[in-house]
Amino acid sequence: MDAIEYAHANQARFLAELIDLLSIPSISAQPEHKPDMKRAATWLCEKLLAAGCPTAEVMPTAGHPVVYAEWLAAGPVAPTILVYGHYDVQPPDPLNEWRTPPFQPAAVGDDLFARGASDDKGQAYVHVKAVEAFKETAGAPPVNVKCIFEGEEEIGSPSLAPFIREHADLLAADVAVISDSHILDKDTPSVVYALRGLTYVEVEVTGPDHDLHSGIYGGAVCNPINALCRMIAKLQDDEGHIAIPGFYDRVRALDADERAELAKAPFDREAWLAEAGVKADWGELGYTIVERTTARPTLDVNGIWGGYIEPGAKTVLPGKAFAKISTRLVPDQDPARITQLIRDYLLEIAPPEVSVEVRSLHSADSAIVRRDSPAMQAAFQAYAEVFGKEPIFERGGGSIPVVATLQKVLGIETILMGFGLPDDRLHSPNEKLHLPNFYKGIETVIHFMEMLPQIEE
Amino acid sequence: MDAIEYAHANQARFLAELIDLLSIPSISAQPEHKPDMKRAATWLCEKLLAAGCPTAEVMPTAGHPVVYAEWLAAGPVAPTILVYGHYDVQPPDPLNEWRTPPFQPAAVGDDLFARGASDDKGQAYVHVKAVEAFKETAGAPPVNVKCIFEGEEEIGSPSLAPFIREHADLLAADVAVISDSHILDKDTPSVVYALRGLTYVEVEVTGPDHDLHSGIYGGAVCNPINALCRMIAKLQDDEGHIAIPGFYDRVRALDADERAELAKAPFDREAWLAEAGVKADWGELGYTIVERTTARPTLDVNGIWGGYIEPGAKTVLPGKAFAKISTRLVPDQDPARITQLIRDYLLEIAPPEVSVEVRSLHSADSAIVRRDSPAMQAAFQAYAEVFGKEPIFERGGGSIPVVATLQKVLGIETILMGFGLPDDRLHSPNEKLHLPNFYKGIETVIHFMEMLPQIEE
Repeated sequence: MDAIEYAHANQARFLAELIDLLSIPSISAQPEHKPDMKRAATWLCEKLLAAGCPTAEVMPTAGHPVVYAEWLAAGPVAPTILVYGHYDVQPPDPLNEWRTPPFQPAAVGDDLFARGASDDKGQAYVHVKAVEAFKETAGAPPVNVKCIFEGEEEIGSPSLAPFIREHADLLAADVAVISDSHILDKDTPSVVYALRGLTYVEVEVTGPDHDLHSGIYGGAVCNPINALCRMIAKLQDDEGHIAIPGFYDRVRALDADERAELAKAPFDREAWLAEAGVKADWGELGYTIVERTTARPTLDVNGIWGGYIEPGAKTVLPGKAFAKISTRLVPDQDPARITQLIRDYLLEIAPPEVSVEVRSLHSADSAIVRRDSPAMQAAFQAYAEVFGKEPIFERGGGSIPVVATLQKVLGIETILMGFGLPDDRLHSPNEKLHLPNFYKGIETVIHFMEMLPQIEE
Repeated sequence: MDAIEYAHANQARFLAELIDLLSIPSISAQPEHKPDMKRAATWLCEKLLAAGCPTAEVMPTAGHPVVYAEWLAAGPVAPTILVYGHYDVQPPDPLNEWRTPPFQPAAVGDDLFARGASDDKGQAYVHVKAVEAFKETAGAPPVNVKCIFEGEEEIGSPSLAPFIREHADLLAADVAVISDSHILDKDTPSVVYALRGLTYVEVEVTGPDHDLHSGIYGGAVCNPINALCRMIAKLQDDEGHIAIPGFYDRVRALDADERAELAKAPFDREAWLAEAGVKADWGELGYTIVERTTARPTLDVNGIWGGYIEPGAKTVLPGKAFAKISTRLVPDQDPARITQLIRDYLLEIAPPEVSVEVRSLHSADSAIVRRDSPAMQAAFQAYAEVFGKEPIFERGGGSIPVVATLQKVLGIETILMGFGLPDDRLHSPNEKLHLPNFYKGIETVIHFMEMLPQIEE
């Protein structure tokens, strides 16, 4: 029995284990789940040991712990891969929109519904099972394997970069592999070679120093909600072109080759609309939907609140209004510079009668890697083998900040071997993982590990 | 002894009675106080009988009862006045901010502290004592008097308009008198001759039919929060001039005379800024603060919410965004028409990629009465006589919906004879009534009743 056959024969048990992991509500954003974070980390550690890794430990950080494991049985000549994943998940709210409880995984047909099913527990676990398949068949993986699973990805990974810097020697590798993205559709594999960066700020607009009666003061006091809305309206035009001065200065333009490459991906507009749940698309003129969501920077208000938000009518002119505003960035925009541009612009356009505070909550670098490296070629062939079809190169719309950190600190490129699907509802109610992708993912990683040592730079 | 002398001689007893009334926690909003509502109504009824009214009864409604009394001794040639007041009060919370218990009235210096002291028990009781003063001196008031005291003002008067419509013949009068407002300060009497109306809508903007990940869909899906902000920004310009087509069509312009009249009121800009808690005023160009808050229509967002509003960063592109938006209206704007204009405009400016629902939660008519009517002149002279200073005509910024109801159903104007002060802390902890105003109020009403029959239209 080879590794592939082993993986095939053990699917039911792998699923049962994943359900176990998904039952732990490891919500990194909520302090009351700190014990669950510890539980999830310990659980993973045990599975890595069981998969054959001689070393696996829960390593403390200033925040949630990192799970680190290694198995360097392939020898110094063989390549070393660094697998990254995360065991924390997004909060599940709004709870009432879940058809099944978010932490009671429910297999319905080919899908497994649970918070974290696709992002990222299901995808991270693929690698643990690939390693186990080698242990139980070949005795050990054909490459040296290091694994790092963090618990803070959904809160911006505050402890990860310090951890990587502090343990740069321990983590030294030839290439990183991350499964935390999706392929085009279940029959169309793809490899993501670029990711967007991110800035995320919270804006606080203060008008009067206490809530006022709108009948008594309305018309003579600048309402902070109205002011905030006017400010937000000035951030972009109706088509989403961002109006912040300097915002586009360092955006790397798409050349004709790359646009042609991106256009290869099959794209079903009607299916996309249905999946997004909208009647029409929207956005920057002159770019396709794919380009707008992956290769162009964007701006979204992620949350807004102020004044009276209970049922009924209360005629308050509130003292404060708040918004959470994020941008997605592309190479070579610098998140720190963009955050500063946003702050400067918001302060500039704020009405003089209110005061405005802009707090940066989060930021991430964008990333782009070569499409012709050996590891990329190994991944390409592994997908082709398992899915029976060559993968398409694509850009990702989200951010995986660790990719830039690994590039900067360890000097290595990352191969994004995603096994999710576009309709996995990450961060939303009814998140799911397509189970055939879970099993194919394990096989793809097995092939990747087998092919990598055979390809020369 | 005339009525004025009688009122003067009986101040101590009047105060003791008012303390009695204020001790009843007649909180209309709280079902557990239903017996207290009944007690307060019965108490008032007894006092009206004792003051000489041949008829006084507690009349049922679908909600809390109305107290009705009449004394038509002045004969068919004399004018008939309809006194309106309310015996219900706001809930007293937050209780811990009261220096003395809200329903154990405490006279401290010239002020009487209790929930309802100014709003409206103290002001309503002025009329009962004026009637008593005529009974005990002249034998009967020089005008025909009808009194209606409701118990639902603080919960939006749901039963009042039906009651007035049902008893239109019983309530027929030449003019209504309401003491439920304040004068400019204790030495500066004023008469409110106009009130603003109101529309209040809730706007629901729907983008995608479920929350999306802003990294995956951002840039190609119209974000309902951004859309709502752009819509709200288009409702008015930076100075608060409202951009809704047709909004100003029926606004009665301020003429030079009226502006001069309004400018007579003493106005301390620094004190106003401190009271509002703002560093600068704001609003429609070309109008004073007083004009903007009383004689011009305004628009405020009273609440807004959507997306992720908990601590931290969540990169959601939400499915929905909501706002509560109200306008204050002036004569002759029609609330139903304005609500329709707001709805039409919001639907017109909404991006085609979202859907918008506009629900009307509430509306109220504005009101304005002639400053040269006999009743207004009688009130003017009565204030001048008692306060030793001519009152200033002013407009009120808020709404007293019964004024429009009385105009529509009974066809009569209302004289707002307020005796409160701006710092009475209505609806707040430590509500108080300035006792000299209570006594002067009784005397002002006595003078008003004496003068009214002597002034010809």
